Amino acid sequence: MQLKQIGAIHTPYKRTKEVPYQSSLSEEVCEIEIFREYEGGLKDIEGFSHLIVLYWMRKSEGYSLLVRTPWDTELHGLSTTRSPRRPNPIGISIVRLLERKGNILRVRGVDAIDGTPLIDIKPYVPEFGEKEKREVRIGWFEGRINR
Amino acid sequence: MQLKQIGAIHTPYKRTKEVPYQSSLSEEVCEIEIFREYEGGLKDIEGFSHLIVLYWMRKSEGYSLLVRTPWDTELHGLSTTRSPRRPNPIGISIVRLLERKGNILRVRGVDAIDGTPLIDIKPYVPEFGEKEKREVRIGWFEGRINR
Repeated sequence: MQLKQIGAIHTPYKRTKEVPYQSSLSEEVCEIEIFREYEGGLKDIEGFSHLIVLYWMRKSEGYSLLVRTPWDTELHGLSTTRSPRRPNPIGISIVRLLERKGNILRVRGVDAIDGTPLIDIKPYVPEFGEKEKREVRIGWFEGRINR
Repeated sequence: MQLKQIGAIHTPYKRTKEVPYQSSLSEEVCEIEIFREYEGGLKDIEGFSHLIVLYWMRKSEGYSLLVRTPWDTELHGLSTTRSPRRPNPIGISIVRLLERKGNILRVRGVDAIDGTPLIDIKPYVPEFGEKEKREVRIGWFEGRINR
């Protein structure tokens, strides 16, 4: 299971500490560069307002199964957090697509540091996962996140 | 960028053709097995109704930048589809958590074949990406998916 880098994410965040905890809090415009050999896969992307972006959090080292997050003083199970320190440091952002210029996507809503390797882009189609949306429970995040 | 398998997904789908095109159409109860060494990371997971599951679609071979999907007769850019044939064959499902028994999660809504390697579990917290939800445009999927 070897990943290929298909592009790079360019953001104003140079260090981990500058990255917003919650990608929806990020108002910065960032650029996603898709390497030329994959550019053909962007056909029709202008029709989508939002995209799912997967990236490799390469600055992350090791992991703990119990983690303390910025949201809470308690330790929580790693699988219930978005901590970058995971067995596989894959990050996901749902970004708003502002503009495409060739192999560059200008987006809003990325929470990755500058130069982060891009590994996948998928269409954001909310209907796919939202059948039972009204019944969503968010565990220990309840009352702690910015809606 | 080397991935570690952290578990396995057990589903009734033995072959690619049996997997539903849209995970929200999957009514089957499936089991996600987390290997014992990572079980501690599941603490507090019972509080979440939905999880984001990332897996490696190991039966996928190669990729095309333009693909024909079951939804349409036209070719679309790979980045606007959920085709498993991608440079990095990572699949995402938003699953409903029904029950946890030790290192086994019983869930609904997986669209992976039996034995698929698990690579990550993240909490599903809709507020993270939905600030501008009302303005979502879904490109060529419009009018084609089951809402």
